[in-house]
Amino acid sequence: MSETQKFVKVIAMIPQDLIGKKRDGEKLSTQEINEFIEGVRTGVWADYQTSALLMACYINGMNSEEQNALTEAMLRSGETLDFSAIEKPKADKHSTGGVGDKTSLIIAPLVAACGAAVPMISGRGLGHTGGTLDKLESIEGYNVNLSTAEFKNVIKQCGFAMTGQTAEIAPADKKIYALRDATATVPFIPFIVASIMSKKLAENLDVLVLDVKTGSGAFMKKREDAVRLAEALVKTGNSFGVKTEAVISDMNQPLGRYVGNALEVYECIKILRGEIDNAIEAETAELSIELAARMLYLTGIIGGDIDTARKLVSEKLSDGSALEKFHQNIELQGGDARVCDYPEALLEANICKSEIKVAAAGYVSEIDTGAIGEAIGIIGGGRIKAEDAIDPAVGYVCEAKIGDKLVAGETLGVLYSRNETQARLIGEKLRNAYKIGEEKTPRTKLVKEIIK
Amino acid sequence: MSETQKFVKVIAMIPQDLIGKKRDGEKLSTQEINEFIEGVRTGVWADYQTSALLMACYINGMNSEEQNALTEAMLRSGETLDFSAIEKPKADKHSTGGVGDKTSLIIAPLVAACGAAVPMISGRGLGHTGGTLDKLESIEGYNVNLSTAEFKNVIKQCGFAMTGQTAEIAPADKKIYALRDATATVPFIPFIVASIMSKKLAENLDVLVLDVKTGSGAFMKKREDAVRLAEALVKTGNSFGVKTEAVISDMNQPLGRYVGNALEVYECIKILRGEIDNAIEAETAELSIELAARMLYLTGIIGGDIDTARKLVSEKLSDGSALEKFHQNIELQGGDARVCDYPEALLEANICKSEIKVAAAGYVSEIDTGAIGEAIGIIGGGRIKAEDAIDPAVGYVCEAKIGDKLVAGETLGVLYSRNETQARLIGEKLRNAYKIGEEKTPRTKLVKEIIK
Repeated sequence: MSETQKFVKVIAMIPQDLIGKKRDGEKLSTQEINEFIEGVRTGVWADYQTSALLMACYINGMNSEEQNALTEAMLRSGETLDFSAIEKPKADKHSTGGVGDKTSLIIAPLVAACGAAVPMISGRGLGHTGGTLDKLESIEGYNVNLSTAEFKNVIKQCGFAMTGQTAEIAPADKKIYALRDATATVPFIPFIVASIMSKKLAENLDVLVLDVKTGSGAFMKKREDAVRLAEALVKTGNSFGVKTEAVISDMNQPLGRYVGNALEVYECIKILRGEIDNAIEAETAELSIELAARMLYLTGIIGGDIDTARKLVSEKLSDGSALEKFHQNIELQGGDARVCDYPEALLEANICKSEIKVAAAGYVSEIDTGAIGEAIGIIGGGRIKAEDAIDPAVGYVCEAKIGDKLVAGETLGVLYSRNETQARLIGEKLRNAYKIGEEKTPRTKLVKEIIK
Repeated sequence: MSETQKFVKVIAMIPQDLIGKKRDGEKLSTQEINEFIEGVRTGVWADYQTSALLMACYINGMNSEEQNALTEAMLRSGETLDFSAIEKPKADKHSTGGVGDKTSLIIAPLVAACGAAVPMISGRGLGHTGGTLDKLESIEGYNVNLSTAEFKNVIKQCGFAMTGQTAEIAPADKKIYALRDATATVPFIPFIVASIMSKKLAENLDVLVLDVKTGSGAFMKKREDAVRLAEALVKTGNSFGVKTEAVISDMNQPLGRYVGNALEVYECIKILRGEIDNAIEAETAELSIELAARMLYLTGIIGGDIDTARKLVSEKLSDGSALEKFHQNIELQGGDARVCDYPEALLEANICKSEIKVAAAGYVSEIDTGAIGEAIGIIGGGRIKAEDAIDPAVGYVCEAKIGDKLVAGETLGVLYSRNETQARLIGEKLRNAYKIGEEKTPRTKLVKEIIK
């Protein structure tokens, strides 16, 4: 070994020094965070070194300066999209994830119908939560792997496009996310902010509205944690020049009526068609309208206040403009747009339906929403590991919600599974997800708070 | 994927749960620690999961119950030696590592000469510290990779043997140590205790004496940290039924006169031959006698007190018995035992000697011993990475010690390097390792404290 090589080795000991600093509770400089992320991107940092630093950050904390540096370093680890050819203001929505959380499929065409552009880069489901890409793939032929050129072209033609994250966007986040998932370092605000915002900032947006979920089916179980996360996200977005707001929304029960990939697309198309059957389905429309209105209002392309925006958005939903946009988009992304005319095509005939019934009479007082997501995941509706395949047809129909009064033997929901074995496997888990109380329980408020 | 596979995956999520517990500051049960170590051994735990848990343990701490469980789990991850065929009591010494720390080569033959058996399993140098195995390999032909059968046979014939850790002893420690080294989780007492003691307990010893170094060339820079470590080691050894004591010894300067692999063997053989040239070389003999006497005393094979043991040990050193044992051992382990008769054979003729001189007159008040170890490591005397090759001939001869009064231009030490380039590369670093003061500095006390 030459002397130069020896010295290079000495210099390459930097990961340990950096890990040691954070281990001892010191602050990392922007330069050090840049070195870390560059090391992750290039592979100079081994995975076990990265995970050790992640754990040290998790336990000892990161301040807002470190959080911003991490976000920017992760953003700079990859490419950003150039939308200079699209003149409309660009707005996007991001949800922190939940069960039955399907608003993207309504919001994107709806905001596009109102005149803004929506360059929506989405993810896949993991753990108990679903993912927009998996849902979209329930539509035959729908392509969620657009090239950057295709992505821009679809937006140009119909005002919005929905695709997966390319390898070029925030590649360091991809590596770090996989490690966080395997090392119990997911629920830490600076990591969540950096992960979400590095990808969203790469979209070069004008407006971003965040749907921060709280409750038994959310990552942030407690409302105060959701508020802290929302505040951090909003602050970060605005500091990078993107007009950002967050909606704190309820995830103490699945959103709307359906859980499961094809079932959720079915619900969305029904809503886009104005076919809202009951109050449970109306929830999905309510949250979608609120989020879309905030996006539209922040773009500044309409006059008036947020109520004006809500009114316009509601009109574009009920007059079929949003459905038309979705129809156009499905065709542009290679899918079979006939589902817009006949959403029942999404429902597979060969499915086993089993009613989940309540044992004793009472009020639905609590729902373990995470357990419902997990149960559907186990039978193929979600992923336990990233490489798991999805069965789009399985899922769950929520018939009872918090505050509902039930008689003994009444239906809580209907499980859509492949066979009796699956039904037996998770039936008990679904039933146990409901807590029935004797006293009247108030209904939950869907939109809890707006963070500006 | 079958339903069973899905469930297996759910069960395999245990690493995250366990990591999450320690991340949140909870105590791990013995069962959980066993699962962790078994997961490391079998590879079920990925390296990045192991390192995340190591960091969480480091920051949030482990109590003595967890420390004992970790030690035992690591011990049980491999085989233990069966010495039932050797009737003598078995005693070993372990040092926490330092610069010029060469006492093993004197102690092993010395204690054997006094009638106990010494089954010494040693390590290689890493970082600024040297390793017994590297030193022994300076002796032509000396085999430090004995099979278990060969190891026992050599002990049976000459009372001691020195070899490397086989893959069968505490394999989990090997994996964990490599990760700790790469992730800044080395200096944590429960890990150090588990690493040292799992290997030493595998030797099935009756007696263990620990040489816990403290000072600028030790892992434990502060004396109180060294004492804490010593207490933890002694407590653990005794709780596993091994009579254990620790000596807190000085590492604020290199031990004795020589630093470097062949040079240290040279110093040891000179001492075994009774050829102690000056007070600097006498230090090595002093510490070796103290450690050997404690080992012998604890075995109980001689009557009287520790002074009786010191007297016997000193006699066996000066009467040539220990040298004879070493001669016999070198032959049994395949080495060229003529170095015992002519230790100068260890010194390579083709070496570049450069005197490191003091600029201004004064007292040597401090020595950055770690920097000296690192400097010699850089030119091939040690390892920066575990796979680095060793150059046995390079090293450093200490001519001045703390408390010495020097005139301007007087020699601090002599660097043995391969060429002028090497000498230029580290000469400055060596000179800067010395702090020269105007006031008289007291000499350091070699043996600082005994922990029982």
